[in-house]
Amino acid sequence: MKKAFTSFIVALIMLFSSGYSAFSQYGPRIPKSPEINANNSVTFRLLAKSAVKVGLSGNWMPGWGTVMDMKNDTGLWTLTVDPLPSEMYTYVFVVDGVRTIDPGNPLTVRDGTRIESMFMVPGDKASLYAVNDVPHGTLQKVWYNSAVLGMERLMYVYTPPGYATSSQKYPVLYLLHGAGGDEDAWTTLGRTPQILDNLIAAGKALPMLVVMTNGNPWQAAAPGAGPEKPDQGTPNIGAMGQGKFEESLVKDVVAFIEKNYRVSASKENRAVSGLSMGGMQTMNIANTYPEVFSYYGVMSMGLMDMSRFGGKNDPEARLKSLEALKKSGVKLYWIGCGKEDFLYNSVTDLRKFLDDNKFKYEYLETSGGHTWPNWRIYLSELAPKLFK
Amino acid sequence: MKKAFTSFIVALIMLFSSGYSAFSQYGPRIPKSPEINANNSVTFRLLAKSAVKVGLSGNWMPGWGTVMDMKNDTGLWTLTVDPLPSEMYTYVFVVDGVRTIDPGNPLTVRDGTRIESMFMVPGDKASLYAVNDVPHGTLQKVWYNSAVLGMERLMYVYTPPGYATSSQKYPVLYLLHGAGGDEDAWTTLGRTPQILDNLIAAGKALPMLVVMTNGNPWQAAAPGAGPEKPDQGTPNIGAMGQGKFEESLVKDVVAFIEKNYRVSASKENRAVSGLSMGGMQTMNIANTYPEVFSYYGVMSMGLMDMSRFGGKNDPEARLKSLEALKKSGVKLYWIGCGKEDFLYNSVTDLRKFLDDNKFKYEYLETSGGHTWPNWRIYLSELAPKLFK
Repeated sequence: MKKAFTSFIVALIMLFSSGYSAFSQYGPRIPKSPEINANNSVTFRLLAKSAVKVGLSGNWMPGWGTVMDMKNDTGLWTLTVDPLPSEMYTYVFVVDGVRTIDPGNPLTVRDGTRIESMFMVPGDKASLYAVNDVPHGTLQKVWYNSAVLGMERLMYVYTPPGYATSSQKYPVLYLLHGAGGDEDAWTTLGRTPQILDNLIAAGKALPMLVVMTNGNPWQAAAPGAGPEKPDQGTPNIGAMGQGKFEESLVKDVVAFIEKNYRVSASKENRAVSGLSMGGMQTMNIANTYPEVFSYYGVMSMGLMDMSRFGGKNDPEARLKSLEALKKSGVKLYWIGCGKEDFLYNSVTDLRKFLDDNKFKYEYLETSGGHTWPNWRIYLSELAPKLFK
Repeated sequence: MKKAFTSFIVALIMLFSSGYSAFSQYGPRIPKSPEINANNSVTFRLLAKSAVKVGLSGNWMPGWGTVMDMKNDTGLWTLTVDPLPSEMYTYVFVVDGVRTIDPGNPLTVRDGTRIESMFMVPGDKASLYAVNDVPHGTLQKVWYNSAVLGMERLMYVYTPPGYATSSQKYPVLYLLHGAGGDEDAWTTLGRTPQILDNLIAAGKALPMLVVMTNGNPWQAAAPGAGPEKPDQGTPNIGAMGQGKFEESLVKDVVAFIEKNYRVSASKENRAVSGLSMGGMQTMNIANTYPEVFSYYGVMSMGLMDMSRFGGKNDPEARLKSLEALKKSGVKLYWIGCGKEDFLYNSVTDLRKFLDDNKFKYEYLETSGGHTWPNWRIYLSELAPKLFK
């Protein structure tokens, strides 16, 4: 028994010291990284005795894929970067040319198929995204049948604090990700459960359900979460403009939610919003199913010509759709875009089209580009405007 | 608009080619890895033009941390390993001494604070763990208040297929992880939702809820999932034997589940099982709260002396507890252990203690050690024996 106990403790120490920096006294193999310093500068550390060159690549650096050299001191590579504004950041180490997550940091996020390490710099933004001392909603991973797409599919449903024990009927926001993403995107990179918990606790947003689907019509679920069917990993840009996902959202998803959850099954209690590809899907839904939703949020998207995505470019139909949308009674058509977004011009085109045709919308222009820091802010700006 | 469209397509291609092997025609930067060959040998590939030495370390290799050299051909490092039995495997590349996930593989699992790449070799085991074409249950991330531990805590609740629309009351299995793990462990490494879906669909297990808590009394939730409180990352081995988590499970968790879910609130409809530290907690619960559960599953654990974990070593109390447990009416006391488990001797001691005192139990001895392949099999053997 004594031997078994000793082995058990040794195994525990191995487990903890393999990662927990706090347990470094038991085996200081992995240095603390990243360390947020008092002035919000950040120190990164990597133990790599045999590496020739180690760099740091962070999403706050100018230009995609910028790498800053780290300094080597007998195998411990370090770099302290200038103070950063409060935000959620992702980064990798580049070890002799190979991008790798930080072994000292258990926090990672997956963006499409790319996995990076993550940290938050405290302050205003971080506290909007953080798990604060407020009532928390529940996040559910739910399977539903899509008759339109002919498969069982996975989605997330956020139910607000109090849902389980209340008898209230709630409104629902359907929230759509961009190309390269999947159903995980809004729950991880988007921090949706945390943002909603915090907005609801502050009395800024009404309690609502948020449904986060997989918007890729070729795929049942995120990598590894669905059945292993060889063709399901293959993206099909040409399927984007064909409206199949939009049809499945309206016919399969909304119906499933309204059957299985305690929600208000009326137009005035349904909102749809998406970023990039999801913004395109939101525009398509407004054009094709004007009777379903009263609230729309289009983030970082304005492309109206669907001919490049397997769909149509029909200005006449577009005008007709807009008239139908007007008649159906829109409570809010909200557009958000960053000044440096590569789709900024398309958003200008969309706004001109709406202005020319006297269609009322709200517009938020931010700094920055086609990035998650913007989309998290758009969600936090849009949610308080819904269902009021 | 044309320029915007072109930028959009370029961005899409960047997104896809940064990971999706299927899109390699747009930028073959990341080779397909791993590739499961027809004979179940597996080929690993890493593009690392500047690396001096690249190795592969997999959890199927003999000895913890074994590294096999990979072969370099103009910067593309490859290795094909011998055919592997059907199972879920984890691995890392070792690039000039740094352990890194495979950039060609979007599938990772987190074991404590260590993140590794993952793949499955098809066959019997994989099909038990896979997302098959069967009805799926729902997995919920739920916050609850623990008055005993004085914090809001996160747990997972698996509800079986049909739960949302049925009026049936279900039995509940409380499933506990080991030291170094947290509430994520059974849902990811343990494949619990998939195993339960598959067992229920095959008619082998009854539909049941499975509640997967965080068993670390010093921690609200997994890294990054809880509030950022500086002390919550620090493991406290000495807290293991003090029974606080066990008390919170019985007083906080069971009460929460029975208030918020449609379950049968009776002893005959409650089971508790855990691996390693969770097995110790299961034993403690049997000893301390014999009136709460009818079914017990102790995996890879037999240590009875709690004095090393901040608790007591009291053989007399142990005997008294066992008599109380007998009287309370145990439907099943199940023990599973691998022949090479470092706690094997402690399990032999536990069995001798139970035999000597004429306490009935079932015992499954497998090959292998203190590992997830064993614990997944133990779950799949135990679940069919519950609530029948």
